[in-house]
Amino acid sequence: MSKVLPKRSDDYSLWYNELVKRADLAENAPVRGCMIIKPYGYSIWEKMQAVLDKMFKETGHSNAYFPLFIPKSYLSKEASHIDGFAKECAVVTHYRLKNDENGKGIIVDPEAKLDEELIVRPTSETVIWNTYKTWIQSHRDLPLLINQWANVVRWEMRTRLFLRTTEFLWQEGHTAHATKQEAIVETEQMMNVYATFAQNFMALPVHRGIKSANERFAGAEETYCIEALMQDGKALQAGTSHFLGQNFAKAFDVKFASKEGSLEYVWGTSWGVSTRLMGALIMAHSDDEGLVLPPLLAPIQVVIVPIFKTAEQLDLIEATLKPILAALKAKDISVKFDHSDKYSPGFKFAEYELKGVPLRVAIGARDIENGTVELARRDTKEKTTVPQEGLADTIEKLLQEIQENIYKKAFAYREANTFVADDYTTFKTMLDETPGFILAHWDGTPETEEKIKEETKATIRCIPLDVTSEPGICMVTGKPSAQRVLFARAY
Amino acid sequence: MSKVLPKRSDDYSLWYNELVKRADLAENAPVRGCMIIKPYGYSIWEKMQAVLDKMFKETGHSNAYFPLFIPKSYLSKEASHIDGFAKECAVVTHYRLKNDENGKGIIVDPEAKLDEELIVRPTSETVIWNTYKTWIQSHRDLPLLINQWANVVRWEMRTRLFLRTTEFLWQEGHTAHATKQEAIVETEQMMNVYATFAQNFMALPVHRGIKSANERFAGAEETYCIEALMQDGKALQAGTSHFLGQNFAKAFDVKFASKEGSLEYVWGTSWGVSTRLMGALIMAHSDDEGLVLPPLLAPIQVVIVPIFKTAEQLDLIEATLKPILAALKAKDISVKFDHSDKYSPGFKFAEYELKGVPLRVAIGARDIENGTVELARRDTKEKTTVPQEGLADTIEKLLQEIQENIYKKAFAYREANTFVADDYTTFKTMLDETPGFILAHWDGTPETEEKIKEETKATIRCIPLDVTSEPGICMVTGKPSAQRVLFARAY
Ligand SMILES: [Zn+2]
Ligand SMILES: [Zn+2]
Repeated sequence: MSKVLPKRSDDYSLWYNELVKRADLAENAPVRGCMIIKPYGYSIWEKMQAVLDKMFKETGHSNAYFPLFIPKSYLSKEASHIDGFAKECAVVTHYRLKNDENGKGIIVDPEAKLDEELIVRPTSETVIWNTYKTWIQSHRDLPLLINQWANVVRWEMRTRLFLRTTEFLWQEGHTAHATKQEAIVETEQMMNVYATFAQNFMALPVHRGIKSANERFAGAEETYCIEALMQDGKALQAGTSHFLGQNFAKAFDVKFASKEGSLEYVWGTSWGVSTRLMGALIMAHSDDEGLVLPPLLAPIQVVIVPIFKTAEQLDLIEATLKPILAALKAKDISVKFDHSDKYSPGFKFAEYELKGVPLRVAIGARDIENGTVELARRDTKEKTTVPQEGLADTIEKLLQEIQENIYKKAFAYREANTFVADDYTTFKTMLDETPGFILAHWDGTPETEEKIKEETKATIRCIPLDVTSEPGICMVTGKPSAQRVLFARAY
Repeated sequence: MSKVLPKRSDDYSLWYNELVKRADLAENAPVRGCMIIKPYGYSIWEKMQAVLDKMFKETGHSNAYFPLFIPKSYLSKEASHIDGFAKECAVVTHYRLKNDENGKGIIVDPEAKLDEELIVRPTSETVIWNTYKTWIQSHRDLPLLINQWANVVRWEMRTRLFLRTTEFLWQEGHTAHATKQEAIVETEQMMNVYATFAQNFMALPVHRGIKSANERFAGAEETYCIEALMQDGKALQAGTSHFLGQNFAKAFDVKFASKEGSLEYVWGTSWGVSTRLMGALIMAHSDDEGLVLPPLLAPIQVVIVPIFKTAEQLDLIEATLKPILAALKAKDISVKFDHSDKYSPGFKFAEYELKGVPLRVAIGARDIENGTVELARRDTKEKTTVPQEGLADTIEKLLQEIQENIYKKAFAYREANTFVADDYTTFKTMLDETPGFILAHWDGTPETEEKIKEETKATIRCIPLDVTSEPGICMVTGKPSAQRVLFARAY
């Protein structure tokens, strides 16, 4: 704990990696590219899950569970899906181990080879639409609004904790509808649910938009997304919602009898967010002292550190705190009273700063005399001495203020790092000198997008739905452009 | 829905399979032995999870997440663990698919062979203790109290929905302690948590006990368990809690510096319950009309079915119900008001009976006149007409009564089907003629237990901790026995 974190300005990437480990969020697993989510990190993920799950249920969705394994042949059923997902994945070929006859320990039993290999799900459209075929017969069975919380595996070559890991945790919604219009409304609704969650809980401003064809989900007709800006000026896709058209219905022959009696293909959507959100949360707000957590997602919202030398002093502090702790509990504010004598107050201060606890209360002998405590905000590092009287109310208000302030700060950062480029030279200079979002005109072709990506490593993050823009001409080809799109280098 | 269920007395096994499918709990997945948990079934599992998770946290545990894949070599590190788990498991050998050059679709890329095969976790002791080695240095790091909710895979040859599936969902607690005594207290505590959950929420009476050596978890020094009796007289192990001694600490070299400064091996426990509990819940209480759910785990506790012919009648019913629905909501009672006109009331009655909704409220034109409703209990099938006034209170009381009654019924069944055998002939006759639990004396040797198992298919479910018994002589060998143990044929 004595070792300080690397500075963001020196090495952002190293800062992130060290922060994730030292704040007890996650660490690398022995299996390449997999991660272990530590209790503190997992408790943040649990808070995210709880809020999202409630939002999904409030919009009419139910949870279910589909199998981990997908028969290899399923992946080939939807033509474009296979190109996107049937590549880097974990393949189960055998179902038994045995003791080697030559004493070489346990080996894979060659006689236990599967007839058809199984793929560890990289996403579950195929197995779910194969099931929907039997669940959907009539318009009465629609809409079918299902979500699943699960682990998925994509054999990534370059991995980073939370941001890109071989195995990750996520939720995947899969819905089926009678009409195209209803499926599009669902797709947009879930993008909006994600945006609301990001903004109101993660304190993360996001752009809502539509992906270009190049960046679209394999098997979708349209991919909606939310895009956020990290503190190094790189963008991060925080959630996607796909309008699948009738692609999977056709691939798996899912039809329904309409009210009028005709047999029609079902319209589909899918949408997901993952433990990648943890990476976004960490990178968007944290500083060189450690994590900065928005109170609504902080496992510990308030930590109370007593400053004492004798057991009598501690007793007195505890007696003073008793009604305050009860009042905080009544307000459902999560408090940790750290009265252990294993570590010094200074050590504890640094530790809770590292872990992003939004508010710290220190109370010592002089505070007892004065009827005060010292409050320290994690976001601004401001310290104030306030009366013990009405402390729970003070804290409640302050937590709201911190939540808002973290959002405002991230919003101001994004505004300050969103630029407009009218020509390609300026665009390239900006990417290197003032990394951030760039609004620029593009001719709408995959070729031009590909050229830009190859030459600059920047991609179209989205065709924003929430930025108004004049028509113009493509910065690369000079061809007409209906509106500016959002470029950035991205995670 | 018109088709009736098979009768328990005709074919218990068929009854169970049909019930699971027809009540929308689960179905078989395309991958052999895997299951799809349908929304209604999953919502029951979610209720179980929520209660258990709260109980784990109240006893000081935190959740975390460890990887799905375990390097093959890890499984061999604990000598007896390997025999139990390194057998029937899913083996990942490759990490890439590719398009076949001969146009045969997608094939496994032979160049993407893993250096070391990965096992899809059958349980996570090995990967977790490998991690604990770095997490535990000092007595300050202990106890370490961690739980994980996860999917696991055991390549079972004979599978049945919920009871035994290749992939299943579970929680696995893994704790580390400074002393043997503390680890044993933890092991017993978690057995008691499981027993409390089974009895108070699942309405399932269970015996607490210790497994014989033959039935012990591979790698444990002692396995504690809870054992329940199903309606066909077969026992079901509903949860286990293992005292691991220092076995995994030694296998993975996990030591801590004690307060006195010596370096010592850590003491461990692990404990788990799985979606198997769903099977226990279904089999313990349900009847020939369908599921019977204890109110505390029922996704829908009360269903209200309006009986109406005209829209005006429905309007009147809805107006009458409005304050009642509000009062039920205020009591946190989950209610479904099924006013759809897709199905007839009779159809709905059968449907909710099949799905085990504890209480049905019917309300029609005459009830509106009389200020009454008709209540129908799922557990006893009693119908009563009660006043609308105070209905929420009436329902609240009735739900408690139903919860208690379901437990009492299961308890009475167990009592009526628990027998005492003093000689082996009687024992064998009982197993065939009056299946249930049998308390009998056993000489304590694995050989005798094995002989009994081979000859009768009955196993020692546990050496009960909650049944007092006189010493005696083994029914098979005549050797001395300290106490009667609990035998049964089991799932
Ligand atoms: Zn925007
Ligand atoms: Zn008992």
